[in-house]
Amino acid sequence: QSTKPMKETNKTPVVRDVMGEKVITVDESAGIIEAAGLMKQNERNHVSVLSNGKLVGIITSWDISKAVADGNTDTVNACMTKNVITCSPDETIDVVAKRLTEFKISAIPVIDSNQNVIGMLTSEHISKLFTRGKHE
Amino acid sequence: QSTKPMKETNKTPVVRDVMGEKVITVDESAGIIEAAGLMKQNERNHVSVLSNGKLVGIITSWDISKAVADGNTDTVNACMTKNVITCSPDETIDVVAKRLTEFKISAIPVIDSNQNVIGMLTSEHISKLFTRGKHE
Ligand SMILES: C[S@@+](CC[C@H](N)C(=O)[O-])C[C@H]1O[C@@H](n2cnc3c(N)ncnc32)[C@H](O)[C@@H]1O
Repeated sequence: QSTKPMKETNKTPVVRDVMGEKVITVDESAGIIEAAGLMKQNERNHVSVLSNGKLVGIITSWDISKAVADGNTDTVNACMTKNVITCSPDETIDVVAKRLTEFKISAIPVIDSNQNVIGMLTSEHISKLFTRGKHE
Repeated sequence: QSTKPMKETNKTPVVRDVMGEKVITVDESAGIIEAAGLMKQNERNHVSVLSNGKLVGIITSWDISKAVADGNTDTVNACMTKNVITCSPDETIDVVAKRLTEFKISAIPVIDSNQNVIGMLTSEHISKLFTRGKHE
């Protein structure tokens, strides 16, 4: 999950330049143990949920932890968030960072004009940017 | 969990000004269902683990999800990370953002000179900063 170097300009970077490009997905009919396994294997906190190839939800390690608290060991569909907040690859990071803050989320799937998931942008990617944004 | 306004200077902010000050803790002997309940209740992904009041680990929703993947429903002690990466309240955000990136973690307990946990800094706090850092 590499982050491409920031363009050497003073412009705010766009999502495409910062996002993780390896998309991890699970079908909505899968069990949460399968989703948990994908998170473990890929060291991710967030997995996009698809139905017939289209984005229908997002499931996070927090959702799985919540299922543990509630004593559920249900399907992905029962634990995921269905109204997924998304962004486009061409939006600027400051705009999307504001969206993450507003909705109190730590990751946002990146979708292209055909509604396909092409990446995931997390607050960790944005935080990484902060290590150099003010100093280069 | 409010973030104090950034000082109106061009200096990089320090951890103290950005961290969450409500510290959520669990004893290392607790079960993971209790830890998961704390995460749910407080809408957190990270809980500091104490033994006799001292920091001995960190447990995250990712660790709970991992326990689900592994079929464990064990104690906090068995699932937590024991070598906790920490920071001081007086370090600057860019330095600590670099530490998060280096260790691939999304949160870091803030400890004072007596080794007491006084806050938690997450990549979400840093990401929030990005929405205004370049524009004020
Ligand atoms: C390697 S990360 C992978 C997932 C994701 N990158 C994240 O930051 O949550 C997950 C592991 O990091 C550990 N961890 C999180 N914060 C930590 C910290 N401040 N010090 C040590 N380990 C930490 C967690 O206990 C968990 O086992």
